[in-house]
Amino acid sequence: MKTALTIAGSDSIGGAGIQADIKTMTMNGVYAMSAVTALTAQNTVGVQGIFEVTPEFLGMQLDSVFTDIRPDAVKIGMVSSADLISVIAEKLTAYQAEKIVVDPVMVSTSGSRLICEDAVVMLKEKLLPLAEVVTPNIPEAEVLSGMKIATAEDMMKAAEHISSTYRCAVLCKGGHNLNDANDLLYYNKKYRWFYGERIDNPNTHGTGCTLSSAIASNLAKGQGLCEAVEHAKEYISGALAAMLDLGAGSGPMNHAFALPYSQN
Amino acid sequence: MKTALTIAGSDSIGGAGIQADIKTMTMNGVYAMSAVTALTAQNTVGVQGIFEVTPEFLGMQLDSVFTDIRPDAVKIGMVSSADLISVIAEKLTAYQAEKIVVDPVMVSTSGSRLICEDAVVMLKEKLLPLAEVVTPNIPEAEVLSGMKIATAEDMMKAAEHISSTYRCAVLCKGGHNLNDANDLLYYNKKYRWFYGERIDNPNTHGTGCTLSSAIASNLAKGQGLCEAVEHAKEYISGALAAMLDLGAGSGPMNHAFALPYSQN
Repeated sequence: MKTALTIAGSDSIGGAGIQADIKTMTMNGVYAMSAVTALTAQNTVGVQGIFEVTPEFLGMQLDSVFTDIRPDAVKIGMVSSADLISVIAEKLTAYQAEKIVVDPVMVSTSGSRLICEDAVVMLKEKLLPLAEVVTPNIPEAEVLSGMKIATAEDMMKAAEHISSTYRCAVLCKGGHNLNDANDLLYYNKKYRWFYGERIDNPNTHGTGCTLSSAIASNLAKGQGLCEAVEHAKEYISGALAAMLDLGAGSGPMNHAFALPYSQN
Repeated sequence: MKTALTIAGSDSIGGAGIQADIKTMTMNGVYAMSAVTALTAQNTVGVQGIFEVTPEFLGMQLDSVFTDIRPDAVKIGMVSSADLISVIAEKLTAYQAEKIVVDPVMVSTSGSRLICEDAVVMLKEKLLPLAEVVTPNIPEAEVLSGMKIATAEDMMKAAEHISSTYRCAVLCKGGHNLNDANDLLYYNKKYRWFYGERIDNPNTHGTGCTLSSAIASNLAKGQGLCEAVEHAKEYISGALAAMLDLGAGSGPMNHAFALPYSQN
């Protein structure tokens, strides 16, 4: 059985963060492990509290994992401080981790910055060069590229810019506001568009976490990047199409939609 | 879709704690949520570090969950301090939580006490009276009953004693040392033995967590206690029989054994 590690925050309501990653990896047939960067008290309405983990303890969790069960792929999600990013980069380098997917969680859907400026600098300098692929949404791609993105052509320019600067593949996620959820993968100097199936489901809590951990799962299983992204998009389409409706706000998806006995 | 909440520690290596619970609930067709009591840096060899969560932040996580998505069942795992137990009891009472399964994690497989004496007192006084069922192994049943357990008859006496003292059903887990993994359920003044399928798998990391969260999942789906325990035992037998072998020590089970594409 292949293995994958998520390095991310914990979401109490279970639809995003390590909870979404564990569900996604498990449902994609990969053994899931986790190193927690922060706990959140969170639900579908908002984030009520954050409890930070120290860089030392994050490092201990990574040591416990890598010295015992080597992950075949690694997904990195929300990491809010420069010190935490520094520890992650140091450990992943020391253990020669491979197949690293970075979901550069920086900007919330409502547009507010989630991590401070020096963490963004550290993310760019230390983490992106280790990544096989980085998966920004439009606002995150704007921060990483320093460009304004208003069209599909802008997406292509920004992805190429990020890729050439940090030497990693880039999956720029179009989202519904721009380009009807079509995502652009730029790798090996080639563009590949993934055309999203439009699913009218307002419950999108954790879609970014889920997509990046599905890609990591598929890479762990030995799929090439293109195939890994394609299958991850299919998985997320299935999870959205199951039309789970929980909570007062933007609710979670049904990660277990493939189980015959998982009913909404 | 039915929902369940785990209140427990985080296990970085992914085979026990909230990770085992999330995998178990998901594979049993229930939507999983979590409130983290402590983070551990842990692998199949041992526990390298513990990072405690404050009672206040545990309370915030419980508030975030209960005010948005009501869990149909609750599983409580490792809670190491009296203050944390006190917050859990207070919140579960305030929100009138139902179908509560308490796994009274107190003694490690090697026999050492995992929680301090005043936490044991608080567990007995505040948590057990809220439980629908408590799932001690033999050493834990000895602590809860104050009796020495050496035979199947001792198990029956201890279970009856715990049940009458705390007014909850008791699933006393026999384990391989005593009684060949046969478990005894005592409820409504009746005994029911569950005869374990012997599976020669030394990888038993997280079996206690998995059994209790499978019971909680089945209760969430509306099963009666007897049926819930029976199906949980079947689930854990399947997860053990998949013979996953990861890590240098006592490794995790394959929670996803039912997926056709989950191969060891």
